[in-house]
Amino acid sequence: MNFSIKGVHTAIVTPFDKDGNLDWDSFEKLLDHQAKGKVDGVVISGTTGESPTLTVQEKLALIRKARAYLPESIQVMAGAGSNNTQASVEMAKLAVDAGADSLLVVTPPYNKPSLNGLKLHFSSIATATNHPICLYHVPGRTGQLLSAAELAELCAIEQVVAVKEASADISLFSRAERISQANYLSGDDFTFLGSLAVEGDGVISVVTNIYPQAFRVLYDAFKAGDNPKAARIHKALLPAIEVLFYESNPGPSKAILANKGLCQNYFRAPMVPVSQESYAHIMNVVEDTERALSDLGVEV
Amino acid sequence: MNFSIKGVHTAIVTPFDKDGNLDWDSFEKLLDHQAKGKVDGVVISGTTGESPTLTVQEKLALIRKARAYLPESIQVMAGAGSNNTQASVEMAKLAVDAGADSLLVVTPPYNKPSLNGLKLHFSSIATATNHPICLYHVPGRTGQLLSAAELAELCAIEQVVAVKEASADISLFSRAERISQANYLSGDDFTFLGSLAVEGDGVISVVTNIYPQAFRVLYDAFKAGDNPKAARIHKALLPAIEVLFYESNPGPSKAILANKGLCQNYFRAPMVPVSQESYAHIMNVVEDTERALSDLGVEV
Amino acid sequence: MNFSIKGVHTAIVTPFDKDGNLDWDSFEKLLDHQAKGKVDGVVISGTTGESPTLTVQEKLALIRKARAYLPESIQVMAGAGSNNTQASVEMAKLAVDAGADSLLVVTPPYNKPSLNGLKLHFSSIATATNHPICLYHVPGRTGQLLSAAELAELCAIEQVVAVKEASADISLFSRAERISQANYLSGDDFTFLGSLAVEGDGVISVVTNIYPQAFRVLYDAFKAGDNPKAARIHKALLPAIEVLFYESNPGPSKAILANKGLCQNYFRAPMVPVSQESYAHIMNVVEDTERALSDLGVEV
Amino acid sequence: MNFSIKGVHTAIVTPFDKDGNLDWDSFEKLLDHQAKGKVDGVVISGTTGESPTLTVQEKLALIRKARAYLPESIQVMAGAGSNNTQASVEMAKLAVDAGADSLLVVTPPYNKPSLNGLKLHFSSIATATNHPICLYHVPGRTGQLLSAAELAELCAIEQVVAVKEASADISLFSRAERISQANYLSGDDFTFLGSLAVEGDGVISVVTNIYPQAFRVLYDAFKAGDNPKAARIHKALLPAIEVLFYESNPGPSKAILANKGLCQNYFRAPMVPVSQESYAHIMNVVEDTERALSDLGVEV
Repeated sequence: MNFSIKGVHTAIVTPFDKDGNLDWDSFEKLLDHQAKGKVDGVVISGTTGESPTLTVQEKLALIRKARAYLPESIQVMAGAGSNNTQASVEMAKLAVDAGADSLLVVTPPYNKPSLNGLKLHFSSIATATNHPICLYHVPGRTGQLLSAAELAELCAIEQVVAVKEASADISLFSRAERISQANYLSGDDFTFLGSLAVEGDGVISVVTNIYPQAFRVLYDAFKAGDNPKAARIHKALLPAIEVLFYESNPGPSKAILANKGLCQNYFRAPMVPVSQESYAHIMNVVEDTERALSDLGVEV
Repeated sequence: MNFSIKGVHTAIVTPFDKDGNLDWDSFEKLLDHQAKGKVDGVVISGTTGESPTLTVQEKLALIRKARAYLPESIQVMAGAGSNNTQASVEMAKLAVDAGADSLLVVTPPYNKPSLNGLKLHFSSIATATNHPICLYHVPGRTGQLLSAAELAELCAIEQVVAVKEASADISLFSRAERISQANYLSGDDFTFLGSLAVEGDGVISVVTNIYPQAFRVLYDAFKAGDNPKAARIHKALLPAIEVLFYESNPGPSKAILANKGLCQNYFRAPMVPVSQESYAHIMNVVEDTERALSDLGVEV
Repeated sequence: MNFSIKGVHTAIVTPFDKDGNLDWDSFEKLLDHQAKGKVDGVVISGTTGESPTLTVQEKLALIRKARAYLPESIQVMAGAGSNNTQASVEMAKLAVDAGADSLLVVTPPYNKPSLNGLKLHFSSIATATNHPICLYHVPGRTGQLLSAAELAELCAIEQVVAVKEASADISLFSRAERISQANYLSGDDFTFLGSLAVEGDGVISVVTNIYPQAFRVLYDAFKAGDNPKAARIHKALLPAIEVLFYESNPGPSKAILANKGLCQNYFRAPMVPVSQESYAHIMNVVEDTERALSDLGVEV
Repeated sequence: MNFSIKGVHTAIVTPFDKDGNLDWDSFEKLLDHQAKGKVDGVVISGTTGESPTLTVQEKLALIRKARAYLPESIQVMAGAGSNNTQASVEMAKLAVDAGADSLLVVTPPYNKPSLNGLKLHFSSIATATNHPICLYHVPGRTGQLLSAAELAELCAIEQVVAVKEASADISLFSRAERISQANYLSGDDFTFLGSLAVEGDGVISVVTNIYPQAFRVLYDAFKAGDNPKAARIHKALLPAIEVLFYESNPGPSKAILANKGLCQNYFRAPMVPVSQESYAHIMNVVEDTERALSDLGVEV
């Protein structure tokens, strides 16, 4: 399939207002922030986007808005995964109609199908849409760890053009990438730079919600052969990457974005704002990180 | 809250016909099988019941049918969990209206809220229904392992009268049970007998789909002080318990039940029938198990 | 092989004086404490006995002393394992000559041989001594987790009459026990009572260094069919079992025993006394535990 | 401390003859192979060198020989770790006297001391020798996983100039390296290239026993900014890296080296030669790997 997913993508948060409705003003600000950061793509209604508590209509509205608002050069990927194949097929078709350039499809969480079941799931969505799919492998959330060989088998489906590999195991990442017909993007900000060294193709990131420019510069530097520069940015970002999981994601991300005026600090249950103690810690890390990034000439 | 969940409960499979519709004839047979096996309760639309691919209307129909069809002495518990608090609240209220005696509520899988988020989730459902809740702790599916102290905090919610503890870690089971205001039932057939020794209160079982009588006799023997008898049944069942996860659950269970004429071997994607090779292995184990159970005087 | 290892065994600490020498006065007190607690056996130079820092001559002296000092009814098991087969064979022969009734042989830690290597290791010791062996399976220390089938294969060696199973996974314990020609003893105090329910044969314990009587009564109660009594003692002991690993074992054990005047709080590096903060916490738990045990009529 | 450990180091196998004695002819061949491969250093009596079954005298003889035989430009590091501090101090002093340029000291396996115990262990060796130490962190063998902060605390000991980090977790590697005063070398061939991207300083490798030139070229290419070349070699080597752990290390390594005439396929128990089935598989992988490396212009 002639569609390539690579570079820096942001699994964007979904902004809510105090009544729990979608906050469109903030969404525009967040998209502006991404466009200014020159990311290659955004992911709508991923995990960081609180997809479990969005309705289908809301997801489609977000996709439409993102596609209409962003320049064409920025891809819009839409979360369409679930542990129900029929529901995923329907969501995928609607997402394509709404303008999504590609689909993010997680291996079914919780019910953890057999390999035959996984093949059926991905091929059903692929056949129904004939649209580019990014398979999402995140065993820490789904409860299912696939082997390199199993990942490669799923990548044999033509429409599976990319994998968001979030096992945080760079050995698995590399062994799977080697034998798969698909791009491999890191789904774990900690291992992004390491994954580039083993021919990873990019990242679907949480930290770029806040610092898109940082991973933009890191990625471009690495691709230009300037690994030392990439490594300096990586190290400057490490504390921020860590703090984004200080409480359940996207708690810390939204706290920071709200502090910057890019969204409001509201969530849909079961997600909640971080505690006051966590908040203070998070903001200290942010301050240190931004000083370190500024010292490296990265805009924050 | 004055409602007790204990003893032997079956997380019952959901039977489908070849068109993927609910197979009501088989459902009656399965309920008859449970009633004959003298279980203390059945769980409708649990994981084994392929809850991810059931509609709300189907779940309610199954609850109504089970409650109407089974004698009052057999409790009907309804799966009402998800990773969306509002959806769980709504499902819980409808399940209560449909006649569910209690609710099975898993810790939100995949998005894995913070402890504050978990408290909000369970207390929202508790407040909205004021109905008995069995908290389901299954880190292998949700990606979230709670500590004994965290489980105890959630059990402080009055309506949380029971925990289905499926970490398979009997040390955690016991440490949590000791400090919690709730009954603890094993959610892992392998560790059921061991959990009884540390004052576990029962089981929510997969293997009782097929052999309800076996765990009935095991439980009653243990409670009567006849641990040797309980242990003999436990050991006779071990190969069957193991084989039920030879492929993704409920693949093997339905294969066996279909073989016995109690349902048909149909699934909703992404779940699929076991492979032919697995099928042959499973049936060999079944044959050996039934011989062993018969030798112990357990009806199969 | 006609030798049975079962019941309550203590992996006894090795007492040192302030110069780091063996403290024979304390050793007698510790043995008296075990004899008074009516254990079925003691293990000399196990992990809790700081075996890595004992010389062969010291180990033999401890074995000789224990065998001579204790009544015949109390078995003396000697740690003879290592990751060097020849060294283990030599140590095993010397231990037998020194009077050990049986040998504790861990699966080689750190170098983690293949199954063929494991067979060679255990059969070499078995052949050289023709003495009863208790295989020690402790993946959390050795880095090697064996399957039930692998454990059963090693138990096919005639002299392997028992397994100290310390994976803390009662499912593995039970599946392995079912297919093995050997007694299975728990090597994990948390899961001891649970293991009895699935036909475990006893325990090799850390907590009995301090409270031998507690597990004596628990074991006898369970075997007499009084599981409720056994469970009450189990629950009273849980906080103490937990606190013994609050820092590296045997740090907390020796701190408590020293506080009781049964040994001195000295270690050989790299083991060290617990910190002052830990000490205070440990002693609080001890106080609560002893009150709870006394309430149950267990001598402490 | 003014001594730097970086680049490509080989944890060299220890060759035995059919009677189990050190095979000096093969040792010379192996050293020649390393020198020809232009490694930066060799490690004597590491895990791959079957250190658990070498006597102190044998270790010293190997160190003396390696130091005398190799050009000065190739560092000789000597394994001096154990779980007995006094024994490690003595071994370390002897190793220094025998000519070792630096010491490899693993965190005490099996007895897993507290952080205070670890500090005592490493500072005792550091003080006794005042010689450069490479701390070895290999939780899969020792049973002890340290945090980034704990690793950094141990690196505060002046003589700890390097860490062989073999958790295979590149996130931990990077977070620890960022806050430590020490070089970080990968101890896991799979993650070597990824670790370089996050400012890792080199590798202590198994696969370089066979293909030293490959990691030499990979390392130099990466440092010269030619990541694509480094990545091609990495990918060509992946199947070989994997196959070296197809059975317990160093089983496969010695099988391959023996096949090349560089040593004999003998081991000391509990290590054993690989099975015939494994042997055939290993040799197939070797053939494919060497073709791939040759295609890349790497000498094999």
